[in-house]
Amino acid sequence: MPQPKIFSLIDKIIFDYEMIKDGDKILIAASGGKDSTVLVEYFSNRARRKNCNFEYKALHIESEITKPIDSELVKKMEEWNVPLENLFVDILARVKPNQKMNCFWCATQRRTELLNYAIKNGFNKIALGHHMDDALETLLMNMTEKSELSTMPPYLKYEKYPVAIIRPLLYVPEAEIIAHAKDSGYICHTCTCTYQDNSLRKQIRAKLENLCDTPEKKEHMFYSLKNIQKEYLL
Amino acid sequence: MPQPKIFSLIDKIIFDYEMIKDGDKILIAASGGKDSTVLVEYFSNRARRKNCNFEYKALHIESEITKPIDSELVKKMEEWNVPLENLFVDILARVKPNQKMNCFWCATQRRTELLNYAIKNGFNKIALGHHMDDALETLLMNMTEKSELSTMPPYLKYEKYPVAIIRPLLYVPEAEIIAHAKDSGYICHTCTCTYQDNSLRKQIRAKLENLCDTPEKKEHMFYSLKNIQKEYLL
Repeated sequence: MPQPKIFSLIDKIIFDYEMIKDGDKILIAASGGKDSTVLVEYFSNRARRKNCNFEYKALHIESEITKPIDSELVKKMEEWNVPLENLFVDILARVKPNQKMNCFWCATQRRTELLNYAIKNGFNKIALGHHMDDALETLLMNMTEKSELSTMPPYLKYEKYPVAIIRPLLYVPEAEIIAHAKDSGYICHTCTCTYQDNSLRKQIRAKLENLCDTPEKKEHMFYSLKNIQKEYLL
Repeated sequence: MPQPKIFSLIDKIIFDYEMIKDGDKILIAASGGKDSTVLVEYFSNRARRKNCNFEYKALHIESEITKPIDSELVKKMEEWNVPLENLFVDILARVKPNQKMNCFWCATQRRTELLNYAIKNGFNKIALGHHMDDALETLLMNMTEKSELSTMPPYLKYEKYPVAIIRPLLYVPEAEIIAHAKDSGYICHTCTCTYQDNSLRKQIRAKLENLCDTPEKKEHMFYSLKNIQKEYLL
């Protein structure tokens, strides 16, 4: 069976940033959405290749406000031979009385749980499912809100912990993930908890689409981050 | 008389980039539009300050397809004590038979004439009237079209010639130039020759306004170029 087209983009970024080395133990954050499912599919494929000496595991963090992974998807992951674990985290119970639940806070809780799990279980890398559009949205938000030229990097070593964050989907435009997920028959649900107020995210998404009205512009913009002309800046 | 507010932004960028030094001979490109007129007004003001030992001159490049500087504006510049010269350049005559006249080509011709004039007459700096919005539009165009993170820099030394380009208005948002020009009663005409096809420029302007829907966002975006977080990029 030929490789899906987007796998070659993932191969490329893993090569460019030396994301996977022999002996790595990689924890994949599996939300059950299309992005992390592509990631899980890719790892199950890569693990079957010759000379691939790494371990991986998919971890789903469940809470009162997120759905469990769809049973069809769990079946698919079993077919793919993916080791999958479900970890229940009581997100709502951690909200203090005078605090308001929000997306950012929930994400931070989940990220902390991922990190704790990785450290406790000897994983040295955490793979996240952010794609090219996520990186561009974050770039635009950081520039216009924080006055900072930065985004989600492909490879980031934690300074305090023996763990690195990798983002193997960063070369992949979201449109290609959607197309691939459809072809492969994934359930394409996204984060839709009742607490969610992602209006800011929606706004910046619309602004990105307005700015980059062709797939080429999006790619140009993304790869401009590798082509920084210092003397033609401030 | 108190300084106009935008003069302090110009003071700041000149200080930050050491744009003006004792003994400098500075040629200002004066199109007759609001931007370069602010620049000319600023220089006439600065030249009257104590301990300012530089020379300057405003040069207007006229052609068959641009209007001469408005006579009211010429009078204003006389009041300001500005040395102003008009240089006629036969832009259309240089277009070869199989070539189509366009904005970019015309701008290049005019820039070349400015440079030649500066070299021939001993000017070591050329001051251009680009402002913050121009820089942001160019940034977005360079990112999405050329895959390059670059824009118009405040200070650029020509490698081949003893001349540097300076852009003293780069800290000034266009809205503040417009407000100042109105207050000062400038004629606010912009480049409107019949050959002009600036649809691309208009598009990117609309995209910038969509992306930065408040003055703060524009400023944040601009100053993010001074705050490049290399490890949070590609």
